Amino acid sequence: MIDVPTGWESRGKPAALFRRFEFDRYGQTRDFLDALAALSESSGVHPQNINFGSKYVNITLDAQEPTLTGAANPVLAEQINGLYTSAARQ
Amino acid sequence: MIDVPTGWESRGKPAALFRRFEFDRYGQTRDFLDALAALSESSGVHPQNINFGSKYVNITLDAQEPTLTGAANPVLAEQINGLYTSAARQ
Repeated sequence: MIDVPTGWESRGKPAALFRRFEFDRYGQTRDFLDALAALSESSGVHPQNINFGSKYVNITLDAQEPTLTGAANPVLAEQINGLYTSAARQ
Repeated sequence: MIDVPTGWESRGKPAALFRRFEFDRYGQTRDFLDALAALSESSGVHPQNINFGSKYVNITLDAQEPTLTGAANPVLAEQINGLYTSAARQ
């Protein structure tokens, strides 16, 4: 079984994780992207793809960093959820 | 006639501009993304969509900021080309 964190969808095989994050203002989007970059740099793990416009960010975590379940990294997905909570609240 | 800056493709009607930028290292990609964010903030014009992974950035400029030609902003495209030259050289 694949552990899919809140708000994420499991897609494909091996499973990638995907989530769309929406924001009210560009400033929130920017804060989220900056926090995401800092997380990538500190962890050394980069999402496979990030797709954004002024008020949304779509993130795909691929299965190249397998966990014991063979899925995309659910720990990273949970960390990203935490960044979203912080950015969207500002 | 639409003025299409070097390396960009004109797509659709009204014309959007699209370009893929490739990098040797994530650090260059990051520098480019940071410069792009600074340009967006100073100009107040945001690309419609930015799609990136660790070594590439795809940018779409839509036609919502029309110039006299009705095309996506070629001035912004040229400015982005300048940022690429700087980031890819590092």
